[in-house]
Amino acid sequence: MKIAILLYDNVTALDAIGPYEVLHLLPDAEVHFVATSAGPIKTDAGLAMLNADTALADATDFDIIVIPGTPDPSVVMADEAVLDWVRKSHETTQWTISVCTGAMVLGAAGLLQGLKATTHWLGLEMLENFGAKPTARRVVEQGKIITAAGVSAGIDMALTLAAKEYGDEVAQSIQLIIEYDPQPPFSAGSPDKAPAAITQQIRSQYSIG
Amino acid sequence: MKIAILLYDNVTALDAIGPYEVLHLLPDAEVHFVATSAGPIKTDAGLAMLNADTALADATDFDIIVIPGTPDPSVVMADEAVLDWVRKSHETTQWTISVCTGAMVLGAAGLLQGLKATTHWLGLEMLENFGAKPTARRVVEQGKIITAAGVSAGIDMALTLAAKEYGDEVAQSIQLIIEYDPQPPFSAGSPDKAPAAITQQIRSQYSIG
Repeated sequence: MKIAILLYDNVTALDAIGPYEVLHLLPDAEVHFVATSAGPIKTDAGLAMLNADTALADATDFDIIVIPGTPDPSVVMADEAVLDWVRKSHETTQWTISVCTGAMVLGAAGLLQGLKATTHWLGLEMLENFGAKPTARRVVEQGKIITAAGVSAGIDMALTLAAKEYGDEVAQSIQLIIEYDPQPPFSAGSPDKAPAAITQQIRSQYSIG
Repeated sequence: MKIAILLYDNVTALDAIGPYEVLHLLPDAEVHFVATSAGPIKTDAGLAMLNADTALADATDFDIIVIPGTPDPSVVMADEAVLDWVRKSHETTQWTISVCTGAMVLGAAGLLQGLKATTHWLGLEMLENFGAKPTARRVVEQGKIITAAGVSAGIDMALTLAAKEYGDEVAQSIQLIIEYDPQPPFSAGSPDKAPAAITQQIRSQYSIG
């Protein structure tokens, strides 16, 4: 199972590393981090803390591609080389996946037309720009396209995918290895669960797109 | 708030990136990835997918240090330069933190003597080697030392720390930004919740230390 995780300048690290940590534990996984050029990648914190091992030009024949998000997807959405790679890869993938605003990249590549899709809650309505049907769920599956909600949702998505491809026991084993027994100190992880004042504040401070 | 996240060969990526994704969103955070030398770091998947920006020799005056884990902590536990850095840093930190088997590094540095501590469930008993009291909880706080359970527990730990340092609203805001509303497809993330056969299988396949 050849898996490509796309990296690009300003990417959100956990969008990529959450799925990676699950998917690299699949029985026959071969994971690559792909980017316009191989080498260091700056995340949205401005730190060159990630490394791509494979340039897009050499990144072919993947069974799974994972497109992580960024607080400002406008740059990557306008990168024709990236969009071409996504479209070409998608022709032969078994699964084409986005996390967070990575959905905007799938949308810009024309892959979400008419499909239900999710993304970071702050960007959900923006999915309409691509002919998609915004769907406020943590993981949305439509044929071989899976979109996940914001940042940390990539972990839930990857476990869901592990179960689909290899069965429940493999997914449960991986969940146990990464000790994913989440116990957040608050129930504040979605706009309807967080205190209303906090949701409102984040909505006024941040915008996507 | 100056934060150092230790990297080393064979580190588990999510142990480091989970806390990073939360902590870099703290109001005045300055995060550095520190390692014996700055440059690419291979994770436990054998991929040089992370980058350290600061060499240990230059890594001073941190308010928070985070020590992530690895499936085989024996090498880093025997690295005197790393242990010295942990001990020296700990003298002036506000918080000294481990995720997963990073607790073994704190233990090898002599910091867990007489303290309750947690680690990856597979390595819990090993904490006794360092005079610590193994405590099967997701996050264990003892003075300024916080230990977190395996891999994904670093996210819960970091949100707990955010609340302690900056109050509940800051932590809830970060939780909402990273949309941490976990919905794993199974309840299998701890040895007592996973199907017994799976816990037994992982226990026979893997060992720590």
